[in-house]
Amino acid sequence: MGANYRMVTAASGGEGARRMYAVIMAGGRGERFWPRSRKQFPKQFLPLTGRRTMIQMTYDRLRGLIPPERIIVVTGSDLAGLVAEQLTELPRENILVEPVGRNTAPCAGLAAVVIESRDPEAVIAVLPADHQITDQDGFQGLLRVASALAREHAAPVTLGINPTYPETGYGYIQAGEPLSPQSQARWVERFVEKPSLEKAREYLATGNFYWNSGMFIWHVRTIRRLIAEFLPEVDRGLERIKEAWGTPSAAKVMAAEFSRFPSVSVDYGLLEKTPRIVVIPADIGWDDVGHWTAVSRLSSCDQDGNVIEGNVIAIDTKDSLISGHDRLIAAVGVKDVIIVESEDAVLICAKDRVQDVRQVLSKLRERGLKQYL
Amino acid sequence: MGANYRMVTAASGGEGARRMYAVIMAGGRGERFWPRSRKQFPKQFLPLTGRRTMIQMTYDRLRGLIPPERIIVVTGSDLAGLVAEQLTELPRENILVEPVGRNTAPCAGLAAVVIESRDPEAVIAVLPADHQITDQDGFQGLLRVASALAREHAAPVTLGINPTYPETGYGYIQAGEPLSPQSQARWVERFVEKPSLEKAREYLATGNFYWNSGMFIWHVRTIRRLIAEFLPEVDRGLERIKEAWGTPSAAKVMAAEFSRFPSVSVDYGLLEKTPRIVVIPADIGWDDVGHWTAVSRLSSCDQDGNVIEGNVIAIDTKDSLISGHDRLIAAVGVKDVIIVESEDAVLICAKDRVQDVRQVLSKLRERGLKQYL
Repeated sequence: MGANYRMVTAASGGEGARRMYAVIMAGGRGERFWPRSRKQFPKQFLPLTGRRTMIQMTYDRLRGLIPPERIIVVTGSDLAGLVAEQLTELPRENILVEPVGRNTAPCAGLAAVVIESRDPEAVIAVLPADHQITDQDGFQGLLRVASALAREHAAPVTLGINPTYPETGYGYIQAGEPLSPQSQARWVERFVEKPSLEKAREYLATGNFYWNSGMFIWHVRTIRRLIAEFLPEVDRGLERIKEAWGTPSAAKVMAAEFSRFPSVSVDYGLLEKTPRIVVIPADIGWDDVGHWTAVSRLSSCDQDGNVIEGNVIAIDTKDSLISGHDRLIAAVGVKDVIIVESEDAVLICAKDRVQDVRQVLSKLRERGLKQYL
Repeated sequence: MGANYRMVTAASGGEGARRMYAVIMAGGRGERFWPRSRKQFPKQFLPLTGRRTMIQMTYDRLRGLIPPERIIVVTGSDLAGLVAEQLTELPRENILVEPVGRNTAPCAGLAAVVIESRDPEAVIAVLPADHQITDQDGFQGLLRVASALAREHAAPVTLGINPTYPETGYGYIQAGEPLSPQSQARWVERFVEKPSLEKAREYLATGNFYWNSGMFIWHVRTIRRLIAEFLPEVDRGLERIKEAWGTPSAAKVMAAEFSRFPSVSVDYGLLEKTPRIVVIPADIGWDDVGHWTAVSRLSSCDQDGNVIEGNVIAIDTKDSLISGHDRLIAAVGVKDVIIVESEDAVLICAKDRVQDVRQVLSKLRERGLKQYL
C-alpha cells in the first residue's frame, strides 16, 4: 500500500504538500500516565517509547514534508514553555495558547483561523501530539494523498487504522464505497463510539471498520464551513478572534471567546454530523500509547516479558513494566503489574486496570491533594 | 492452662523468679523486612505490630517479673546504640556486644558467663528480641514454671507453641512423657528441623508436636555444662572471656575468641544432642513475625482485607499490605501484594513470596549496592 500511495503522491501530491500545514494538538493532560505524567508536565512531553518525547517524535515525523514555519502547536498556557523547550526549531509565533481547554473542535477551529490568515488555500493536517507511528514514510505518503483528496473533494479526510484486535477503547469508522474504482480511500459510512467487546469483534470480522486515529486532514475552508454549520457559536467566536489576532486586544478576546465555547470534540461536534468524509486506510505502525500497558507493549522486553528502566531488582517477576525514578525498586514474585515511581509518588497497577489510573486522580482531587496531580 | 500454671507458680515459682535473668538476643538483621529493616536498623528496632518496637515489647513483656538490672541484651556493636536508645531503663552494662555474630549458641554462652559471675545460681530465660506474644500474663506464668523446672531438673526448658496450622517455616519439637502425671510439661522426644508440608500436617495430626519458639530457660550451670560437652572449643573461649571480663583486655579477648567461634545455633549445636530437655506447651498468642505477611496477618485490616499505613490511595485493592514512608503510594486493582516504601527503596512482593525478600538482599550484595542493605 505504501508504494502505491507514494506513486499517487508523485503524480498529484506536489501542491498538497507545498501548501500543507500541520497542527499538533498538545493540550492533553495524559492522566493515565500518572504519576510520571503530571498536570504541569503531561504525557506528550515525556519520552515514553524512545529517547525523544512524544511531541518531539510527532514533530520529527513531519520532517521533509512540512517545514517548521508551517507547523502549529496548540497547547495550554502552562504548557507553552515546555513546547518551546522541546521543539527548539519551531517559530515561537507558531505556538498557539488556548486560554482554557475546550476539547478538539475549538482547538482545530483556532488553528484554522490563524492558518487562514496566512494562506486561505492551506490544507491542514490535525495531529495528536502523543501518538506513535513507526512507519514515517508511509505516514508522509498518506498525508500527501490525504491533502490532495481533501483539496479535490472539499471534504474532511481521516486516517483509519487497520484494526488488529477488537479494541474497546477506540472509536471506529465504518467505511463505505471507494472514492473511485482504483482508490483505496473510501467514503465514511459512519463514526462509531467506543464499542462493546462483542461489537468490536463484529467490526473486526467485517473488514469495513477502522480505528479512528484522531488524525484529520482538511482544507481550511472545509473546517471553517463545518464549524459554521454545526457549531455556529464557535464560528462567531473564531471570527472575533481572527479580527483581533495580532492586535493588543487579542489575548482578551481569546480568553472571552474560549470561556464561552462548548467543550466538544471534532468527532462528536463535527464529523459525526457530516455526510461526506473520506477515510484512508492506514497501516503505518500507529498506536495511541493510551496507557502504561501500551508502553509496555511497545517497548522491547527481556526474556521474562518485563520492560524495566531505572534502578530495579526483579526476582521471579513476569510480564511487568517497572519504571524507576531515583529509588531502588525491588519486585518479587509479581506478574502483569505496572510499577512506576516518580519523585513524589509510586503507582502499582494491575496491567488490565491501567485505564483506572484516572480514578487515582479523582481521589487526589477529592482529598485536595493537588500537589500530586 | 494459664490459670493452672499460675497456681503452680504461687506454690514453687518464688525463688525461680527472684534469681531469674532474661537474655534478649538482639543481633539479628531482619532481612525479610527489607526495605524497612536495614543492616544498621534491623527488624527488632521497628514498630512492626504496634506503637512500640519489637525489642521494646519484648522488654515490656518482662515487667513485673524480671527487673531491668537482670535483663541482658546481646547485640552487635553497630546496634548497641539503638538498644540503649530504645530501652532507656536498661543499665548500660547490661548491653553485651558481640564482636561478630556467631548465631545463638555463642550468644547464649556469652550471656551465661556474664550472668554466672553475678549469680552462679541464676536461671536464665533466653528470648528472641523480635517476636510477638499477646498474652503477657500467660507468658510470665510459663516463665515462672519453666524457671522452677529448670532448677529442679537441671535441664533446659523450652516453650513449645501449640501449632495451629502446618507451618513449614518453623522447627518442631516432638513431646514425649509428662514430667509427672499431673504436669503439662513433658520430656522432649526430639527436635525436628523445618518439615515438608506433608510432614507438618502429620505432626499437627498427632497432637504431640509443638513449634520451636526459640525461647529457652535454663540454669546457668546447665547451659555451661551443655556447651562444655557439645561445643568444648566455645566453652574454652568463654572461660577466657570470663577471666578477662572487667579488665582492660576484655574487648581484645572477646574479639579474638568470637572470631574463632563456630557459627552455630542453640538448637543444632546443643539441644538436638541433649537427651533430657523439658518442653512446656505454650498458648500465649505467640508469633515470630517472620515476614511481611505475618505483619499483615497480625494487624487489623479494613473491609477489603488491606493493612494500610502512610499516604496511600488504594483502588480495588484487596488483601494487601501497603506501608508508605513519605511518598504517595497508589495501588490499582492489585491483590495479595506487599508494598513497602522506605526512604530510598520500594518493595513490591507477592504475599506468598515474602520469604524471598532475602533474594533481593543477595542481589544487592552481588551488585555491590551496599547502601541499600
